[in-house]
Order: sequence, then structure tokens, then C-alpha cells
Amino acid sequence: MTLPAPARVGMPLDEVDTPALLLDLDAFEHNLETLERTLAGRQVRIRPHAKSHKCPRIALIQMQRGAVGVCCQKVSEAEALVDGGVTDVMVSNEIVGAGKLARLAALAKRARLSVLADHPDAVDALATAVRGTGASIEVLVEVDVGAGRCGTLPGEPAAVLAAHIAGKPGLRFRGIHAYQGGAQHLRTPAERESAIASAVDQVKDTLAALKRHGLEAEIVTGAGTGTYLLEAASGVYNEIQPGSYVFMDADYGRNLEADGTPVHTFRHSLFVLATVMSRPTPNRAVVDAGLKAHSVDSGNPSVAGVPGATFLRASDEHGTIQVASPFDLPLASKVKLIPGHCDPTVNLYDWLVCYRGSRVEDVWPIAARGAFY
Amino acid sequence: MTLPAPARVGMPLDEVDTPALLLDLDAFEHNLETLERTLAGRQVRIRPHAKSHKCPRIALIQMQRGAVGVCCQKVSEAEALVDGGVTDVMVSNEIVGAGKLARLAALAKRARLSVLADHPDAVDALATAVRGTGASIEVLVEVDVGAGRCGTLPGEPAAVLAAHIAGKPGLRFRGIHAYQGGAQHLRTPAERESAIASAVDQVKDTLAALKRHGLEAEIVTGAGTGTYLLEAASGVYNEIQPGSYVFMDADYGRNLEADGTPVHTFRHSLFVLATVMSRPTPNRAVVDAGLKAHSVDSGNPSVAGVPGATFLRASDEHGTIQVASPFDLPLASKVKLIPGHCDPTVNLYDWLVCYRGSRVEDVWPIAARGAFY
Repeated sequence: MTLPAPARVGMPLDEVDTPALLLDLDAFEHNLETLERTLAGRQVRIRPHAKSHKCPRIALIQMQRGAVGVCCQKVSEAEALVDGGVTDVMVSNEIVGAGKLARLAALAKRARLSVLADHPDAVDALATAVRGTGASIEVLVEVDVGAGRCGTLPGEPAAVLAAHIAGKPGLRFRGIHAYQGGAQHLRTPAERESAIASAVDQVKDTLAALKRHGLEAEIVTGAGTGTYLLEAASGVYNEIQPGSYVFMDADYGRNLEADGTPVHTFRHSLFVLATVMSRPTPNRAVVDAGLKAHSVDSGNPSVAGVPGATFLRASDEHGTIQVASPFDLPLASKVKLIPGHCDPTVNLYDWLVCYRGSRVEDVWPIAARGAFY
Repeated sequence: MTLPAPARVGMPLDEVDTPALLLDLDAFEHNLETLERTLAGRQVRIRPHAKSHKCPRIALIQMQRGAVGVCCQKVSEAEALVDGGVTDVMVSNEIVGAGKLARLAALAKRARLSVLADHPDAVDALATAVRGTGASIEVLVEVDVGAGRCGTLPGEPAAVLAAHIAGKPGLRFRGIHAYQGGAQHLRTPAERESAIASAVDQVKDTLAALKRHGLEAEIVTGAGTGTYLLEAASGVYNEIQPGSYVFMDADYGRNLEADGTPVHTFRHSLFVLATVMSRPTPNRAVVDAGLKAHSVDSGNPSVAGVPGATFLRASDEHGTIQVASPFDLPLASKVKLIPGHCDPTVNLYDWLVCYRGSRVEDVWPIAARGAFY
């Protein structure tokens, strides 16, 4: 079920129904510009991750500004993006299961499509799915460069799998996917630099192994919002895939600059608009946005624009906020929360209410909300 | 956007697309029967909480088995339930905002409807919304009996608000809502008994204060899956509203019986079916169900039926599981996860795949998924 949008174009922000997911267009555009500006002179292509926004409208804006395509994580997400007009999608994930692979092969006839693999059995299954369809799928080997999740070991094991891919009709070995997800939220620049330096070494080992097999990685991709400048400067990555940079969130906001201050490259553009539904004590305000309106996996949201206010805890439909003054956050007032973690929060909403100043400028469907198949 | 269901009736469970939300019908029916059996002889009405399942089909089954109605938390949730055929809904929450109140008044002409209040301004706004519509809404005073979230203080403050409600045309004071949410997951029976004993004392104080104002609470409601036997035995609560009992979850499974063993009143009926998408090391299996497929706010899911397997961490679309043997959870196999917290997990899914044994018996729409307005 998709609920009606909580806002209409032209509506004052204060009339938007809550909870609502808001996008501050000025901050969003600042973030798009900042990514480009900070990459000026670097020889890297930008392929933003659409798992953060799940919104074809944003994907198209990113591509209009020079992105070569987008990444996503699921076949159904790729379908929603292609349905929305996106022409080049990398499913930066392993896809398993005959049904999903058949859909992937079908989609590859409608858009340029690439996908990852980290096991020969998965490659064989993908080749089987593609056979006879006339589709062609580009495959990258996922290499574990320190994240400890999916991926082959760097070096020879990755090259062996690449050779396996290269030998399969309908598949084309395209390169390596070396995303160090664990490095994105390391708090200090020194920690992030160390993690990416190690990843770069492992990428180099893998490129050398590929060369021994007579193979070349046309694409070396990875990087997220926390580390993309490091990969871009590495000389080995030629594509980067930050996602959260368009929005930011409270958790990314805890990363630090070299001088110990919070990172300030990007601005917070994503908010959950909530209403104060109960004001039971002088220092407690309860809002209508709980666990079903924002994800607390990476910590609680921050309260925007209310000095001294702290989001204490979320229950299913309630958010309990401690306020500094009995006059803060009166009953029925509205408040903007900065989500703890943008990606799973966006996935709770069908609509993104885009505003500038205090006026709703557009309402975009989050077409891939719930697209986890 | 609502995605197609991941299963068809009659399909073997192993062919269901993943991630999928599964309901084991045998365990579900056991739980329905168990609630009734454990309440035999108690003078309490059952009004299960539909915020857990968000599914009119389940609400109707509960009412067919004797529930007097259901609770929910949001106006849009109530709308979805009434659209689905439910005739008696308590919105067990404060509702704020003219738009929401107008919808509530409209809904009160289609079903028996009650709602909570904890502030005279909210009561006035509700009375304004009802005026001239011909609707009648029953209002309960929410009393904070220890949860520390919404609600008036017990005793005189609650009675003063009740008198305020009773004086408003179109509103009818119906009783008090005294839910001790904080007690539900206290681990030992002694802790839960102590918390509910305190809540009962505060309810008694409130009933006495109401009497002084010449008012009577026809309904005294509260209780959840963790404590409902205590409220049912209290002699003051006459309605109870457990929700999670139909499903259970890993967090409720950590509550203890008096002998120190985990609670075993209800069975786990709710699972997230996931597929092993990567098997990068002998002891690591990665499944396709991460933060967008289950909520980790109350801890990680448990892995059902795989001895020695531990769910280590969820990222957006991945779940990393440590397995005891290299032969456990092979690539492309499926596994059932017991969600850490059922309510926000259910809210991520559009479909509930109901099965018995190894066969899909029905697929129910989770009609109020995302209904947080």
C-alpha cells in the first residue's frame, strides 16, 4: 500500500502532514556541487549509490550533472531505477537465485547493467540465466579489501574468478569492486587514511594478479561518503560510488576533520518532520516519529534547531525528546529531526517532500522503497 | 510503490523470493489459542494491538475469536483497518493536528472509534474537529503509570482531564489508558510484577479521583505481551491490549520465567526468510536481509534451526552470520531469521507469506505498512 503524499507543491512546510521525509533542496544542491568541486582534476568517474535515495528523480539529476550511472543493491531496485529512466545501473552486490538472475538478464536488455560476483558457482548461475536471452551483462569481481563482508580475497583468488567470468559467454569481465565499507565511519582522518591505504595496496595486488592472467580491470570502483577523496587520489580507483553525500545523517556527522571538528564537507539535507503530540512534563516532549519513521541502528536522530534538545529514545511510534526549557517544542509544534542513518530511514517512506526555505517545491516518489528482492 | 508478493499460494516455501516475511500458521494459531487459554476465568476483554501486525486479516481473525476490537496508533492505520472490515478501533495514542483530527472524526462515522488524550488543548481540538460532523468519539485519558512517555499524572490530574472531556459535546469520556510499556521487557517475573503492582496502585488512585469527580471509567486498559497476565489478575484492568503475542520476537524471547528459563508461553511464528548470497570464508555466511529487511533496534535477529549460528551484524542490505561449520548455510541456501523486534520489522513489508509445514497457504497484504500519518 502506498499512502497519499503528505504534502502538495506550494504548501507551507508547516502544513505538511507528519511524519514526513523532507529534502532541503538548497542543501541537496550544495552537496551535489561539493562532490563535483572536491573531485575537480581527479581522473575518476562518479557513479553515486542509489541505495541511499531509492529515487529515480535524484538518480537522473546526478546523471545530468555528469555521473556515468548509478549503483544499487537489489534487482528490484535496479528495475525501479530503469523504469524511472536510468540507463546505466551497477548492481554492486552478489545476486543469487534463478528467479532474480532471470530478471537481471531481462533488465540487461533495457539498460546497461553490471553486477558483482565473488564465487564461481554464482558466475555459472548468472551465465545460465543469460544464455539464450541475447542479453549481455558486465561482471565485476568483488574483492574484500578490509570490510569483512562479501568478496574474494585480493590478489590471485580474485584473478582466478575474473578468468572464470571472462570465459563465460554472455558475461564480460569488467573490473573489480573494492569497497571498504568499514572505513566510512572511522572517526578520525588518520584511521580512514590507514584503512584506505591498505585497501589500495590490496587493489594493486589484485591488478598485478589480473595482469598475470592476461586480464585488465577497466573499472576499479569503491569509496563512500566518508573516504571518497582518498580513493579518488589513490591512482588506482577510477570510479567512486558515494551515496549518503546527497543527504548526510547524524552518524556521518560524527566523523571528524583533521582539526577534531565534525566533518563539514556536506550539509544535512534530509530531515524527518515530526509533530509534538504530547508535552507531559516541563522537560519532556514526545513526537510522532518513532522506530517506524527513522532507523536508530546507528544511533538516535539529532534535533535540528532546538538548542539543548536531545532525542532520548524511540519506541515504535513515539520519539521522546528532552528539552532544556518548558517553552521549547510546545504541543502541536513541528520539529525537524536529522536521522541517525539515512539509508534505512529513506526506505521507510514513499514520498520525499522537497522544500526550499519554508515552501514545498516538489514531491518525489521514492520508487524503490521496499525494493529488497 | 507496492512490490509484487514474493510468493504464490501453494508454492513450496523454498521457492519464496527473499527477503520475505513469513508467518508460521501453526505457531500463530497456537499463540491465539494460548492467549485465550491463559485468560480463561479472567474478567477482561481482549483488544489486541494491531500496530504489531498492521494486517486487517489478522485483526478480523482476532475479532472472530472474541476480541472486542483492536488498538492501533495512527489515524492512517485506523483507516486501513476500517477499510479492511474492522468495526471497533481504539487509537491508543494522542492525535494532534487539525487534518488528522478531521480524518478521525470522519472515520468515527464508519466504525466505533476511541482515542486517547493527555492534555486539555488536545481535547478542545478534538471537540472542534467533531463539531457539526454528527460523529461521536470515545476518549480515554492516558495516565502515565511508570512508562515515562505520554500521559497525565495519575490521580487528580487524570480526573480533571476526564471531567474536561466529559463536558465536551461530541466526546464521551470512556475510561483510562494505563499502559506500562517499560515493564514489557523487564527480564525477570519479579521485576515485571513489581512494575505492574505499582501501575495498579496508580490506576486505583486514579479511579478514586474519578469517583470524587462523579466520573467512572468504564474501560481500564493497558498491558502488553510481557505482562498481560498481571493486569488481567489485577482486578482493576478490564481490557488488555497485547500485540506481539501473535508473533513473538528475539527480544521478547529474552524475557525469563520464574525458573530462569526463557519465556515459553508463546511460540515464534514470525520469520524473515533470507538467502545466503555470499560464503566468503569457512565461518562466514552473508544473507540478503539487512537493515531494510528487519529492525535491529532491540538487538540482532536469531538464526532459526542452525545450531551454533550467530547473526553478527546487519548493514543496509546484508546480514553477516557466523557459522560453526563450513558446511552450514551453503551458498544459495535459505535461512529463517527470528527478528529482533517484530513491530518495526513488519512495517518494512507489504506482504505476509503464511505457510504451514513447507507450503505457502496464503499471502496477506500488510495493508497498514507505512501508515504512520
